[in-house]
Amino acid sequence: MNEGRKRNLTMLTDFYELTMANGYFQNGFADRIAYFDLFFRKVPDGGGFAIMAGLEQLIDYLKDLHFTEEDIAFLRGKGIFDEAFLQFLRNFSFSCDVWAVPEGTPVFPHEPIVTVRGPVIQAQFIETMVLLAINHPSLIATKANRICRAAKGRPVMEFGSRRAQGYDGAVYGARAAYIGGCVGTACTICERDFSIPALGTMAHSWVQMFDSELSAFRAYARAYPDSCTLLVDTYHTLKSGIPNAIRIFQEEILPRGFRPAGVRIDSGDITYLSKKARKMLDEAGFPDCKIVASNSLDELIIQDMLLQGAKVDSFGVGERLITAASTPIFGGVYKLVAVEEEGEIVPKIKLSENVTKITTPGFKTTWRLLDRDSGKAIADVVTGFEENIDDNQPYTIFDPEHTWKRKTVTNFVARQLLVPVFEQGKCVYASPSVDEIKAYCAGQIGTLWDEVLRFENPHEYYVDLSQQVWEQKQRLLAEYHA
Amino acid sequence: MNEGRKRNLTMLTDFYELTMANGYFQNGFADRIAYFDLFFRKVPDGGGFAIMAGLEQLIDYLKDLHFTEEDIAFLRGKGIFDEAFLQFLRNFSFSCDVWAVPEGTPVFPHEPIVTVRGPVIQAQFIETMVLLAINHPSLIATKANRICRAAKGRPVMEFGSRRAQGYDGAVYGARAAYIGGCVGTACTICERDFSIPALGTMAHSWVQMFDSELSAFRAYARAYPDSCTLLVDTYHTLKSGIPNAIRIFQEEILPRGFRPAGVRIDSGDITYLSKKARKMLDEAGFPDCKIVASNSLDELIIQDMLLQGAKVDSFGVGERLITAASTPIFGGVYKLVAVEEEGEIVPKIKLSENVTKITTPGFKTTWRLLDRDSGKAIADVVTGFEENIDDNQPYTIFDPEHTWKRKTVTNFVARQLLVPVFEQGKCVYASPSVDEIKAYCAGQIGTLWDEVLRFENPHEYYVDLSQQVWEQKQRLLAEYHA
Repeated sequence: MNEGRKRNLTMLTDFYELTMANGYFQNGFADRIAYFDLFFRKVPDGGGFAIMAGLEQLIDYLKDLHFTEEDIAFLRGKGIFDEAFLQFLRNFSFSCDVWAVPEGTPVFPHEPIVTVRGPVIQAQFIETMVLLAINHPSLIATKANRICRAAKGRPVMEFGSRRAQGYDGAVYGARAAYIGGCVGTACTICERDFSIPALGTMAHSWVQMFDSELSAFRAYARAYPDSCTLLVDTYHTLKSGIPNAIRIFQEEILPRGFRPAGVRIDSGDITYLSKKARKMLDEAGFPDCKIVASNSLDELIIQDMLLQGAKVDSFGVGERLITAASTPIFGGVYKLVAVEEEGEIVPKIKLSENVTKITTPGFKTTWRLLDRDSGKAIADVVTGFEENIDDNQPYTIFDPEHTWKRKTVTNFVARQLLVPVFEQGKCVYASPSVDEIKAYCAGQIGTLWDEVLRFENPHEYYVDLSQQVWEQKQRLLAEYHA
Repeated sequence: MNEGRKRNLTMLTDFYELTMANGYFQNGFADRIAYFDLFFRKVPDGGGFAIMAGLEQLIDYLKDLHFTEEDIAFLRGKGIFDEAFLQFLRNFSFSCDVWAVPEGTPVFPHEPIVTVRGPVIQAQFIETMVLLAINHPSLIATKANRICRAAKGRPVMEFGSRRAQGYDGAVYGARAAYIGGCVGTACTICERDFSIPALGTMAHSWVQMFDSELSAFRAYARAYPDSCTLLVDTYHTLKSGIPNAIRIFQEEILPRGFRPAGVRIDSGDITYLSKKARKMLDEAGFPDCKIVASNSLDELIIQDMLLQGAKVDSFGVGERLITAASTPIFGGVYKLVAVEEEGEIVPKIKLSENVTKITTPGFKTTWRLLDRDSGKAIADVVTGFEENIDDNQPYTIFDPEHTWKRKTVTNFVARQLLVPVFEQGKCVYASPSVDEIKAYCAGQIGTLWDEVLRFENPHEYYVDLSQQVWEQKQRLLAEYHA
């Protein structure tokens, strides 16, 4: 078991979770049942959808939630917490219900992707880590998927550890990138801990260490004759890198009965260089030698390179993937949507002068309607948790803002996206392997129309409210604005 | 001791560090001495300087560098490593020399901020983590400093854990933000582990949990009468939030002999709302009640708010600080600059079709020249490691690109920025406390001219090469282009 994942992260929480918990405790709210939804408001990069990831991390965290004596002593030292409350923390035992959308699922703004039900102290306390566990991996999986789609089937490797935002940024980022479509990572620990293929060849420093580029290539070829990829841009890609690589392939690889694996270009005008390099390699009898490109790539650069005819067979993508540089924030939020009072669920709303920040109250769930013939996703619908969508009957969806926009769907399958993950604090969900998640993700992307997949100005996928949820929201809005 | 920092991160390395190490081992290079420099090429956000951070993390990593039996078994399973090499890893013992610029120091592009000397297998192997340990904290310290300077003395709190890129992104990010100038963080674990003040009050969910905003405020005021900050924008800031806060201050805080601490506004037009709120609070007899603003702030928004007269006393800055959203990458690189051959140091260069990617060869160090009277930084100079700058003599600096631009400085103090951190694998550096680093950082920022501190189009601070280093670089450039 990976040492990193054994860390107890209970105290990785915003301090207000603790001041509120103490306040609830003092007010006799310790056992009051509350409902929280995690949802996001905007897809990064203006894309048409995001990819859910991070559930396994969230589960690891929730399973291990406990306060050590060191934590209790630290909190006592803050001088603002009751002894009774500290005793309560010492005996803290997670007992919430949690539902979540499985990792690898395309998800859309304003629909619950995690729902938590339980004693308010607990359900509130976990807010910071629920968000941290889901926001970051979902961000990276979403970005990786854009980059992989731009590469149009060519393999994309995750190369970004050194520029990641912290160790977990590198490690869990690489896992998320793999879910989103990357074929592997440069990050060794990810193979050890997550079975994600880790690959790597040489840096410029290897080439510099030897007397000449030729002798550096020769030494590498002799060490790895069956997987020889040479970095050709340390001095001059076309004048020395490619000619030296060809010579070494001929002198060291062929005689050993192997074929060259590839050359990597990491600087310069890669589109131009790749075309020239391709021609030189082909003429030397190595049409099967792959050309790998790296150097500050992202989906737009890759798209442009391919449009201009770059002869690149695979891509190594680093800093702009591992930080999701163009939109480095996944804005998931975790909002109170209901409380129980005398056994009854009372919906709660948060208003805002920013209209998009108004929440949708109530204990809810998320459905996806898929066309029965094509398998394509038609719309998502947020319903009350107990509501059912009978896919043997026509079902009318409507835009929750512009309610005259209505559509009755028939011939569809309704699938509930949120699945039970914890029941009364006990984990009831077995995470699939990362390879299963990756394959599931690819399949689910296939249910989206091309219009939703567009990088720029995608079609806005419908996320509608059921009549019941919509009416409840209108009622609460009217109450507060009366 | 913090559990997170006990993690062994030896395998958090790009896989090519291992293929190269194995290759060096096979080629009899195991004990060949190499020199690497860490430097960066561009200041994030187009700023005039960056702030060095992350050295303590780097030290933690280097002290704990070792391969477990599990690691060895994993690497054996890859099927490409010699048994002799695996045995070498089993007995791995770090023996390099490391020099680094202390945390909190302003640093500039193209100067070494970490230099490593040692057996190439070791010095190469640590590349990924050297970069990861320094790049991320330096990014966040630099961003935090911009945000704090925009706030012009008003306290800035780091609020971003939930949107950080991974757990370490949150924790080490908060530490870096504190070094850069923030007064504290929302992240509880940072106080437990780094003694960085963690603060927090309430979320909107607290207000929603109660029957009314008034009863929520009342409950909070009773729980924390001596530090009562109320979140006033859950329903309507000016119509309900502020009036309810004032009533609670009068009914619950004053009678207990306290003064109200503050109100927090987290949405809407904060500039406008803060002015109105200030007026209402003043008229109610609470001119000392602070107004705290949060909600997707950064240095440009804060600067604008203050220019427009926002009545904000302190800021909570979240996602755009903890991810350095506007430039989420700190592009530090780690390059081979020399090797030893028969006891002699042989400089090495990396060329590139991108001219700015050409490295400066040789074993070097970085100096800062400060005006003896004003204490202001005049220029940095990169010299050979054994070179001395005698600050009792006039010293001529020149632009390494436009060499006719020359300046002779007199009346200056020369300070070496790189200090010894490891000597033959043994740590010889005692990290200052984070409060000492923070204070040192503030002092060092004071040595920079206002022109360097500008957010946009700052003066480009001089980072020059000594005559010796410059000549050596020219010689190697000429050799490779002959």
